[in-house]
Amino acid sequence: MKVITSIKEMQQYIHSLKQDGKTVGFVPTMGFLHEGHLTLMKKARSENDVLAVSIFVNPIQFGPNEDFDSYPRDLERDSKLAEETGVDVLFHPSTEEMYPAKMSLTAVVHSRINVLCGRQRNGHFDGVATVLVKLFNIVQPDSAYFGLKDAQQVAVVDGLITDFNFPITLVPVEIVREEDGLAKSSRNVNLTLQEREEAPRLYESLQMAKREIDKGQRNPKVIEDLIIKHITTHTSGVIDYVELYRYPELDELSQLNGKIIIAIAVKFTKARLIDNITFDVKE
Amino acid sequence: MKVITSIKEMQQYIHSLKQDGKTVGFVPTMGFLHEGHLTLMKKARSENDVLAVSIFVNPIQFGPNEDFDSYPRDLERDSKLAEETGVDVLFHPSTEEMYPAKMSLTAVVHSRINVLCGRQRNGHFDGVATVLVKLFNIVQPDSAYFGLKDAQQVAVVDGLITDFNFPITLVPVEIVREEDGLAKSSRNVNLTLQEREEAPRLYESLQMAKREIDKGQRNPKVIEDLIIKHITTHTSGVIDYVELYRYPELDELSQLNGKIIIAIAVKFTKARLIDNITFDVKE
Repeated sequence: MKVITSIKEMQQYIHSLKQDGKTVGFVPTMGFLHEGHLTLMKKARSENDVLAVSIFVNPIQFGPNEDFDSYPRDLERDSKLAEETGVDVLFHPSTEEMYPAKMSLTAVVHSRINVLCGRQRNGHFDGVATVLVKLFNIVQPDSAYFGLKDAQQVAVVDGLITDFNFPITLVPVEIVREEDGLAKSSRNVNLTLQEREEAPRLYESLQMAKREIDKGQRNPKVIEDLIIKHITTHTSGVIDYVELYRYPELDELSQLNGKIIIAIAVKFTKARLIDNITFDVKE
Repeated sequence: MKVITSIKEMQQYIHSLKQDGKTVGFVPTMGFLHEGHLTLMKKARSENDVLAVSIFVNPIQFGPNEDFDSYPRDLERDSKLAEETGVDVLFHPSTEEMYPAKMSLTAVVHSRINVLCGRQRNGHFDGVATVLVKLFNIVQPDSAYFGLKDAQQVAVVDGLITDFNFPITLVPVEIVREEDGLAKSSRNVNLTLQEREEAPRLYESLQMAKREIDKGQRNPKVIEDLIIKHITTHTSGVIDYVELYRYPELDELSQLNGKIIIAIAVKFTKARLIDNITFDVKE
């Protein structure tokens, strides 16, 4: 596995691969790799000649009260995991390499942001979009892999690739779940034993909602109420949001049709869990 | 000469050229080609395997009181000129092809804008940067050619390519001048006979300024005054601005050093002329 820290060297390396007709799959990360990242990498590994992964904790996507400085970093462990997963090139630039001076311009995201978790993270997606413009131009992948656990990020990246005409295929990767349906998350360990037993009810509520829609229910408010009732009845969690939108546009829907997302966030004592499903509403 | 109107077809065509190891030179234009454009094309022609030119009148770089609708268009004449100049592929998308829906994100330019002509064109460079992000991703050139007549645009594009890490070489092309030094412009025909005789004094004032700096003058205010005096003494034009900046950053300078630009705008009866020189101040 090649480790590259220089933008110029990365661009030259990618250029030589392209000259040889190789396809490049790309998984951008902020490091501290977990099973979700490894799932993306394995999929990208199987679908491309070359697997490129970036590890860069992007300062401009953190808010002033967020945890940029304390964000966990462990390059040694990450490098080992990446190598074991078949990564060909690990791009790991310094903050100074990526942002040597004040940016003369940035990407600003206008839609898909003031819903779900984005509502509380002003400017977050501008930082995500800006660093992805940079990384896409550095890595020049044929395909880029993002996990649907953060479905809002996938929606923003879809807008970025489509509206800026990047010649890149976005590959959204399904949420990885425990056997009982709970979406995998590094935060699950912070659940109490009782909360851990209740937690599969979140995904259960989403599946139940989908069944109701498949049976013909088209009123988003009715679906929302069903989910709220299921979660409050069967868990001790406090609902942060239950929202239904057109996907990936994240527009409000008065009537369910087309491709939609149902997304939820629920607070337990020491862990806030999120989950979602995206699917086509049958005609 | 190939004429392409579809983004997807253009990206596929460029992809096939890249697979063959061809280099692509790119001249983005809004059409109604004049000698300035042809100079860019000839230079790009001589330096690349493939010459790509785009003709697209970009609505989002026009202000509400600017002339988008009445901007001159003549595709037939432009196609003929492009073909004669050795263009291999002319990319000419419709507005709907480039902007099928409201953009979910745009590029926003933070610096290099509130000086020179940009001061009066709020949002103009955001529109320029956004369409260039799109065009660069569609055409994927090795080199992009821009004329220094609009030195502020060149500065913004320099920031765009550098800060967004586009793997593209920016080629700024020198101003083309009449024999008497007047910068060529489609607006020169709107000068009266007397104004036309006076107009070479603009470039003369810039050359004079450079000579003073070469001789050791480092105070921008002194240089500015020299230029103002020269133009007001020898022409009937009204000075709009005389400005000196670091180039391409367009930062203010209290002391002249490094690479600088001296730029001027002068209003005549029915024509506003601009001119500039960029050069390294000798140590």
